Amino acid sequence: MIKKRIMAPGPTEVPPEVLAAGGMPILHHRTPEFRAIFAEVSEKIKYVFQTSQPVLTLAAGGTGGMEAIVVNLSAPGEKVLVISAGVFGERWAKIAEGLERKVVRISVPYGKAVTTDEIKKAIDANPDAVLLCGTLSETSTGVEHPIQEIAAITKASRTLFAVDAISGLAACKLKMDEWSIDAVVSGTQKGLMMPPGLALIALSERAWVAVKAKKSPKFYWSFESALAKLTEEKLPDTPWTPNVSLVRQLQASLLLIHAEGIENIWARHELLAKATQAAMQALGLTLFAEHPSVSVTSVQSPEGIDSGDIVKKMRAEWGISIVGGQGSMLGKIFRIGHLGYCDRTDVLMTVAALECVLSELGVPITTGEGVKAAQSIFLKS
Amino acid sequence: MIKKRIMAPGPTEVPPEVLAAGGMPILHHRTPEFRAIFAEVSEKIKYVFQTSQPVLTLAAGGTGGMEAIVVNLSAPGEKVLVISAGVFGERWAKIAEGLERKVVRISVPYGKAVTTDEIKKAIDANPDAVLLCGTLSETSTGVEHPIQEIAAITKASRTLFAVDAISGLAACKLKMDEWSIDAVVSGTQKGLMMPPGLALIALSERAWVAVKAKKSPKFYWSFESALAKLTEEKLPDTPWTPNVSLVRQLQASLLLIHAEGIENIWARHELLAKATQAAMQALGLTLFAEHPSVSVTSVQSPEGIDSGDIVKKMRAEWGISIVGGQGSMLGKIFRIGHLGYCDRTDVLMTVAALECVLSELGVPITTGEGVKAAQSIFLKS
Repeated sequence: MIKKRIMAPGPTEVPPEVLAAGGMPILHHRTPEFRAIFAEVSEKIKYVFQTSQPVLTLAAGGTGGMEAIVVNLSAPGEKVLVISAGVFGERWAKIAEGLERKVVRISVPYGKAVTTDEIKKAIDANPDAVLLCGTLSETSTGVEHPIQEIAAITKASRTLFAVDAISGLAACKLKMDEWSIDAVVSGTQKGLMMPPGLALIALSERAWVAVKAKKSPKFYWSFESALAKLTEEKLPDTPWTPNVSLVRQLQASLLLIHAEGIENIWARHELLAKATQAAMQALGLTLFAEHPSVSVTSVQSPEGIDSGDIVKKMRAEWGISIVGGQGSMLGKIFRIGHLGYCDRTDVLMTVAALECVLSELGVPITTGEGVKAAQSIFLKS
Repeated sequence: MIKKRIMAPGPTEVPPEVLAAGGMPILHHRTPEFRAIFAEVSEKIKYVFQTSQPVLTLAAGGTGGMEAIVVNLSAPGEKVLVISAGVFGERWAKIAEGLERKVVRISVPYGKAVTTDEIKKAIDANPDAVLLCGTLSETSTGVEHPIQEIAAITKASRTLFAVDAISGLAACKLKMDEWSIDAVVSGTQKGLMMPPGLALIALSERAWVAVKAKKSPKFYWSFESALAKLTEEKLPDTPWTPNVSLVRQLQASLLLIHAEGIENIWARHELLAKATQAAMQALGLTLFAEHPSVSVTSVQSPEGIDSGDIVKKMRAEWGISIVGGQGSMLGKIFRIGHLGYCDRTDVLMTVAALECVLSELGVPITTGEGVKAAQSIFLKS
């Protein structure tokens, strides 16, 4: 028997309570029963975003949510700044280009975080940019960007700041209102510990002003349509049929998140990240990210080893899904997710299995050393 | 105890096998295990569409799928014909207008089906129309449109014909290839007996030619991106994270659909519709649709009765979700869905409960007469 386990940076594992909610019968979406659930969920999710603003629920993947932000906060031909520091930063650029915005990239070498100097320069050089798009946790490189510092810069400018927190929400520290972020988008298959399929979006007050003023072709993605239904007099609703099962699962997930507490969730992710990083370093491996995200640890593949072989052996022999590198990082790095429904034991088992795999691939490591380093972090905490 | 039952034209009830699949653990979407499921599903769904063309799976609601068709098969400023004969026909128009297409409506009074004469005239008068958008089963009025006949007209023209089969697929007879339909979109929460959340789309050969030639801003909705991943050398994939749970549920649903057989599914829906119609008429009620859909029966509310009261009592006292009228039909009609996971017993129980509700509301009916008429249809079949 080889059990299947996910230690990827999304989709992540889903707690049994949330899985069970997915197997519950369908409620008709216009019934008071369903709308009461949707009301509860729409209220409780604000805490996860650390916002008092309404959080919109779209039936779409995270990329759809990113597209919705571009559609609602910029118009064709307008200038959009993008922090391109990995596959997901670059996705903002491709969306905006696909929708005929004028894209200016702030290009950052993969593995590094953008600096506030680079942001300042870009904002100063492009006063006509209506939107700056960035990534909280760049899953492809394992880097966490200095969102709070960037928001302090955009706050003082006329450029709105949109953050892809798809793999960052409920993992990396994020205080939307306090930090003055203008738009945050997340998906469900990461820190929210659910299957993929919903995009969750919150906007600042000034972003809502922009949405209402913006002349941009839209229908399905219209934030105004979503807001009108969410703030209906009776109970909140959605303009199009919502994903009923996922909303039920979000209800179950938010129960768990509120019980654990967002500060504790951030601390748990920090601890798991530290232990994983320490384990990799104890095995003589090199971390790829200069400013590692607490949701994923990216590691350079040992010399002469294709990281794809490590990933395949982890899955085939140990049942553990970690992931390799994307794009230009293909074969060169592997990434361990410690995100969402993930605990210390998950990290220990993954490091232990990885040691076996590396050993079998002929990498000169001492088995047990990685586990020992992780244990040490846990025992000290 | 009042059990909750759905007799609405979507979301519909979900069979236990499909619910259970929704509670299964998440598979990482890039694993061979998940891609094998996606391959199976992508192949088996063709039978439901009656097409040999690839069927794309988008993480979006049905309305998102409609938007994707407009985005891929027309460009801003181009002319789009829309059969506007209810809320969902009108939705095509609103999407196309929202995306800055030039919309020409073929307006049909609610409750009636469009005629081939009206289509011929519109096509002749608008030779520059790139797309005609219609609805198989117009859920808001309960009307089924003559899709086969319309397709015979568009086939001989340069206008592509797109059909919203969201509530029609796997219920109303539909033969995409044989009838020469250019684009079919469906959702999962209707005949496919699943929760909402996936849009399924198939295109004709000439529609694919149009997609490749069309200059229309897009990213998330790009059919070319979806096709490239679906037809990857190894195993089919999706460009963005798919809704893993729903794909698993589609696998379970397709097992049931293939076992029953699509012709039998069409026949079952026809039988349930006939029995429901007969029951309503036996109670002295008037059907609203001239050409009733086999997926939903729309009924004029008895004089002096707000249909909303019937709907509320059905839900509160009998646990059965039927629906009222939308838009201009609000309060005037009620609609009974007999769609997807629905059998003869469901129809009998609904008619019986409805008789009690009507009776309590003071409508002069003879209880039992509706049930008797439905039974008679079933006994003869």
